[in-house]
Amino acid sequence: MRMYDIILKKRNGGTLTEEEIRQLVEGYTKGSIPDYQMSAFLMAVYFQGMTDEETAILTDAMAHSGDMMDLSEIPGVKVDKHSTGGVGDKTTLIVAPIVAACGCHVAKMSGRGLGHTGGTVDKMESIPGMRTSLTREEFLRTAREAGLSVTGQSGNLTPADKKIYALRDVTGTVESIPLIASSIMSKKLAAGSDCILLDVKTGSGAFMKTVEDSIKLAEKMVAIGTRNGRKTAALITNMDIPLGSQIGNSLEVEEAVRTLNGEGPADLTEVCLSLATEMLFLAGKGTREACRKMAEEAVSSKEALKRLAAMVKYQGGDEECIFHPEKLGKAPIKADIEAPCDGYITNMNTEGIGISAMMLGAGRETKESELDYLAGILLKKKTGDPIKKGETIAQLLTSEEWRVSGARARFLESITVAQEKPKEEQLVYARVTEEGVTLL
Amino acid sequence: MRMYDIILKKRNGGTLTEEEIRQLVEGYTKGSIPDYQMSAFLMAVYFQGMTDEETAILTDAMAHSGDMMDLSEIPGVKVDKHSTGGVGDKTTLIVAPIVAACGCHVAKMSGRGLGHTGGTVDKMESIPGMRTSLTREEFLRTAREAGLSVTGQSGNLTPADKKIYALRDVTGTVESIPLIASSIMSKKLAAGSDCILLDVKTGSGAFMKTVEDSIKLAEKMVAIGTRNGRKTAALITNMDIPLGSQIGNSLEVEEAVRTLNGEGPADLTEVCLSLATEMLFLAGKGTREACRKMAEEAVSSKEALKRLAAMVKYQGGDEECIFHPEKLGKAPIKADIEAPCDGYITNMNTEGIGISAMMLGAGRETKESELDYLAGILLKKKTGDPIKKGETIAQLLTSEEWRVSGARARFLESITVAQEKPKEEQLVYARVTEEGVTLL
Repeated sequence: MRMYDIILKKRNGGTLTEEEIRQLVEGYTKGSIPDYQMSAFLMAVYFQGMTDEETAILTDAMAHSGDMMDLSEIPGVKVDKHSTGGVGDKTTLIVAPIVAACGCHVAKMSGRGLGHTGGTVDKMESIPGMRTSLTREEFLRTAREAGLSVTGQSGNLTPADKKIYALRDVTGTVESIPLIASSIMSKKLAAGSDCILLDVKTGSGAFMKTVEDSIKLAEKMVAIGTRNGRKTAALITNMDIPLGSQIGNSLEVEEAVRTLNGEGPADLTEVCLSLATEMLFLAGKGTREACRKMAEEAVSSKEALKRLAAMVKYQGGDEECIFHPEKLGKAPIKADIEAPCDGYITNMNTEGIGISAMMLGAGRETKESELDYLAGILLKKKTGDPIKKGETIAQLLTSEEWRVSGARARFLESITVAQEKPKEEQLVYARVTEEGVTLL
Repeated sequence: MRMYDIILKKRNGGTLTEEEIRQLVEGYTKGSIPDYQMSAFLMAVYFQGMTDEETAILTDAMAHSGDMMDLSEIPGVKVDKHSTGGVGDKTTLIVAPIVAACGCHVAKMSGRGLGHTGGTVDKMESIPGMRTSLTREEFLRTAREAGLSVTGQSGNLTPADKKIYALRDVTGTVESIPLIASSIMSKKLAAGSDCILLDVKTGSGAFMKTVEDSIKLAEKMVAIGTRNGRKTAALITNMDIPLGSQIGNSLEVEEAVRTLNGEGPADLTEVCLSLATEMLFLAGKGTREACRKMAEEAVSSKEALKRLAAMVKYQGGDEECIFHPEKLGKAPIKADIEAPCDGYITNMNTEGIGISAMMLGAGRETKESELDYLAGILLKKKTGDPIKKGETIAQLLTSEEWRVSGARARFLESITVAQEKPKEEQLVYARVTEEGVTLL
């Protein structure tokens, strides 16, 4: 079938065959299908959607467009985790060590931050010496020996996804659930783990703004993973408030370490334990109750912390920064943000707060921006907390004085103060598995 | 506004501003907007549509993307006509001379045929010596002196339309009423006439299959013409049956001449008189009754025939072919098609019959195909006619024997015979003017 007919079929609401989808992905990747036909097709998908079956085939075709990671040299069950991205989201640095301490292996590829969201690779690079670009052998050895390894994307993984994503980004076709789901899941399939837990962030700091949309995306991704032979589940978690109290690269490493020492903020600790529980459950480590207990013990015994330190060491980083995170350093410039009046913080526009951190140097405005690893925000008060006029609600940290005023204005714009205490925020909204959706 | 934001606005159902539309057309024409963004935009228009205001601005911007014909050297009212294309549609060769004989001027650009539809330029070129590629001066002089001139598209007219149409053609975005309307009307605006009559063909041989869709398209085009200061109207005419009894280039010239001699088939004569009446009415030549009478007299007096001969002469053709059309020649190979059984012809798939004619050499399968000017079909029986088994219902004409069997099969497939006489077909379904729709 010609590409023209494939466009027309989708435009008219038809369901594509496996052959058509594979032809599409292969043709586009090797360049025989031009961008202008692909973008018209993607816009038709935006309007007409794709069935679960179509999406699963698309994902598999994208995954197989390049190398498929072979993790068989790592013993036991390999568990992966993916977050759809948020502000203050340092969960990988906590969850992966916990899961590794419980006898699973995490060999994970992570991304860099862009705009208001951070990326695990950037956070890791705030540790002196830490390498996130590993050879295949280094990656497998670290995962085998330390129990976990997190690296930047390497090799020729999912070239189809890279090419399609770049096109979607400039043609207004990003916000399509089957396209988002296939993009994420193609990378997860190619990355080779047996189990995949998806952390679908929801709210003002997330790509998905509502729980309903997040559940739809999660269902689609779980269906894709399952159809492609991976044990897959998702948690829908809160990103209407930044996660934890520290935003910024070294600040987040420090908070992750604190959480692995059992002294992290309650919200971050709870979300991480929930994620770790679900990963262990997927890996067949027992009932959810048993898995939760294992995860808690991995923290209290400091076994998880040791795993993180081991990974840092294997990847060339200074493991002393894990045991003594003050060694990561502090930004020279600190600016307090004071409460403008008495009341309660009733809302934090989390995207706005992420942009404020970006403006301080903690994030990238464009792919080419340079990071200031020490920059970021310490949150002293969060949604639901009572505040008094003049009291410090946050501290901005940066290495360049000129960055403060814009970031301060953006931060203050993102905070709503009112007299009535808002109702408590839920941390984990729902669980999506092969069996269906459980609202929590 | 960036192109990305324009795509998103349309994708989300927004209405574009004049500035955005002009920026879009200008940017795409000069190449600063890439094909892949334009095709995503066009697909979004397919799903979200455009308001009359947006479509009128788009059309004007496309018209002004290149040269605008200046017909002011031709005295009096200039009237143009456009057919959306059909099978056996030789109306231009009849209507333009009638209107010219009534004191209007027709300076018209016409296209070539493709697929099952014919084009006036091809038909004219079946007359020995006839030139359809004229300089501006030749074109204006012919229209001034003969009262009419029909030429192929020349100069740098509507480059935006050419570029957008070529893209739509390969990206599944042809079937969008605002895009079809703006494409047709941009050429009509650029061609410079004061009055524009649109002949929207409807049925199995036309682009528009239903009267409802044809009316929608006509309304959109009339609105565009009117908003851009041209007197514009449309007739919705029947293309569920081929028009007249002859299909093919020289065959259609011969039938046009016969009709201008007052001896044409009833359906063709009636449709042509209706179109001519409407054109004269638009040009302000009197009431519809008076205009109809003028048109009839232009035929009975042979004034219209003389105008056609004059145009042929001015454009280098052999005018003797108009007075003695047998000079056009006959195809060497004739094949009769016999009625397969007794009954009535209840349906003719007109696209199929057009393709049958194309297979005989009368039309182009691709833009590069060579035409056989003498090839075509003589219809002896049409929808509604009673037939007797073995009686000749059509004659296929071609210069190459091998073409007959495929064309015959295709022709027979396109004919439905049944025992009950079908109800009579209407020739003109509706009239669409600035004031609204009149069902006829």
